[in-house]
Amino acid sequence: MRQRLIFTNRPGEAIDGLVAGLRPANVYVIVDANTEKQVLSLLSAMSEAVAGAKTICVGEGDVNKNLDSLASVWTVLNETGATRSSLVLNVGGGMVTDMGGFAAATFKRGMRFINVPTTLLAAVDASVGGKTGVNFNGCKNEIGVFAESEAAVISTVFFDTLPVRELLSGYAEMLKHALLDNRKTFCDLLDYSFAGAGYDKDRLLELLKESVAVKERIVAEDLHEHGIRKALNLGHTTGHAFESFAMAVRHSPIPHGYAVAWGMVVELILSRMLTGFPSDMLQRYVAYVRDNYGAFDFTCDDYSRLLGFMAHDKKNPSADRINFSLLGDVGDVVIDTVVDIDNIKAALDIYRDMTGI
Amino acid sequence: MRQRLIFTNRPGEAIDGLVAGLRPANVYVIVDANTEKQVLSLLSAMSEAVAGAKTICVGEGDVNKNLDSLASVWTVLNETGATRSSLVLNVGGGMVTDMGGFAAATFKRGMRFINVPTTLLAAVDASVGGKTGVNFNGCKNEIGVFAESEAAVISTVFFDTLPVRELLSGYAEMLKHALLDNRKTFCDLLDYSFAGAGYDKDRLLELLKESVAVKERIVAEDLHEHGIRKALNLGHTTGHAFESFAMAVRHSPIPHGYAVAWGMVVELILSRMLTGFPSDMLQRYVAYVRDNYGAFDFTCDDYSRLLGFMAHDKKNPSADRINFSLLGDVGDVVIDTVVDIDNIKAALDIYRDMTGI
Repeated sequence: MRQRLIFTNRPGEAIDGLVAGLRPANVYVIVDANTEKQVLSLLSAMSEAVAGAKTICVGEGDVNKNLDSLASVWTVLNETGATRSSLVLNVGGGMVTDMGGFAAATFKRGMRFINVPTTLLAAVDASVGGKTGVNFNGCKNEIGVFAESEAAVISTVFFDTLPVRELLSGYAEMLKHALLDNRKTFCDLLDYSFAGAGYDKDRLLELLKESVAVKERIVAEDLHEHGIRKALNLGHTTGHAFESFAMAVRHSPIPHGYAVAWGMVVELILSRMLTGFPSDMLQRYVAYVRDNYGAFDFTCDDYSRLLGFMAHDKKNPSADRINFSLLGDVGDVVIDTVVDIDNIKAALDIYRDMTGI
Repeated sequence: MRQRLIFTNRPGEAIDGLVAGLRPANVYVIVDANTEKQVLSLLSAMSEAVAGAKTICVGEGDVNKNLDSLASVWTVLNETGATRSSLVLNVGGGMVTDMGGFAAATFKRGMRFINVPTTLLAAVDASVGGKTGVNFNGCKNEIGVFAESEAAVISTVFFDTLPVRELLSGYAEMLKHALLDNRKTFCDLLDYSFAGAGYDKDRLLELLKESVAVKERIVAEDLHEHGIRKALNLGHTTGHAFESFAMAVRHSPIPHGYAVAWGMVVELILSRMLTGFPSDMLQRYVAYVRDNYGAFDFTCDDYSRLLGFMAHDKKNPSADRINFSLLGDVGDVVIDTVVDIDNIKAALDIYRDMTGI
């Protein structure tokens, strides 16, 4: 069974329609403390099912995506008589959809659940793949199962409460998927802007729908060939190096999505140099990143540290060669390109020129 | 994919053959403290894979089938670098196969595992259905998933260390399945005896294979009709009443399997009275139970307490009528038979006559 994906800016109606169809014995809403404050009263006003549900609130943030929070959810389900005919609505970011999905998938060997992502990143991520889980012993998503939700209700009306910084972090993931897939979607994304408070939420919903469709194609293709999975690493070898450098050297972390957006600049420059990526697409992407994300700032004195972080990336097979997934064009992936140090240094030079740092 | 079932009294060879085929990065053996002492050195001598495996030992008994034990297993897997290419061997009774299966099914969203049941009950249970899980908040198997092992290696050579009492407890489950399915298997079971230290382990392995095949048919049938699931309750309405009575009134618990064996006597008497169960089959079953299990001892002064426990059985829909799954013959199930109090009292009278208490 494939989960249903509903893209709508009337999420209350969608949820009530789904609940009417599933006829659960009772309904639970799992939220974190932040979502409870920012979103739950809004959603309760839109949906009878949410208004009548039992709320289970967990601590917010990745630090609470752990066994203790999970046990607290199981305890409420157990003590309030939840059954396999009950239904869980996971309302929140990726932490809530991952942990709530795992709690539901394992309570009495499996309850039904619906994801209602309230962040852009969760909206992209919660849509396909059915990954659920929690962190354990300092390792991310160490414990979990693959379990598909009954449905995901994807809406941009929740994003009002999100800082633009967080929207852009999720948007970097959408840009990456488009780069791996097709020029039209990629150009549609470059034509969109979050600038100003009144960004177009309905247009963003359309772009999300397009982006999720791209992700579904990539995941479906991955069933047959192993290449695309590596392609999902686009921008990450350099992005992780930027993140590690910011943390270890500057003691000032940068958002993951920003690091990936900047990392993709470097890796598209390498693609231009080595695999024929077209100049106009590179120029447009760099302009978009510069205008929206600014630039990650470093000098040529930092190159050796950055190269060290790249070589030790956990997805890099050995320390003395650095492996990249590059692009021949938008949608044309060239996996496992070994790049020598001089070319990477040249790309970092060009990055600094193009972003004006 | 269906898990492989291997019935053999050379379990070491079977395990090594499976491991050679699966080519895991490394192998873990999960045992409880009792199995580690009684079985592990025997099995290590038989199997290179077991001898070379990392052992994870948990506390024994249902009381340790909990989140703490589970977390201790996850911790060892995490700290010793287990990956999704590793393999877990669950060696033990139902507690180890249930908890170890759940630990493996959830570590990094799913490792492969093989069950090596060392009790008769686990050998019957671990063979089909893929139920894994742990107890939580005082509720049995409250947290878990359905996950099939790669294979179950079923062997009677481990049973040497089991008291006959525990063998008979598992055997009651085999008798129940045969009663629900066919006369030949049922009669084969009645012809077998555990009396004496030198009971025939190879014959028991054949009977186990037959019994598991019966259980597979029942489970497969259950996919289509809901009747058989209720039929698996045969002997349990009365058996639970005996267990509750023994615990609450006499403060002296009786083994679950014995309670079911005795409960099935009462329910086969009801089947003789109400649904035409043949007299010769009833006589043979009662003789087998009397000779091997003895009898649960009570007088007519205890009837009202026993009836009270039956009426409050969690699977009974209401307190003023008592529902049974009865048999028209071996293999002919009559579900949802409402029985009045006088008939139950008559059946208890006949039980006392037939068992000679």
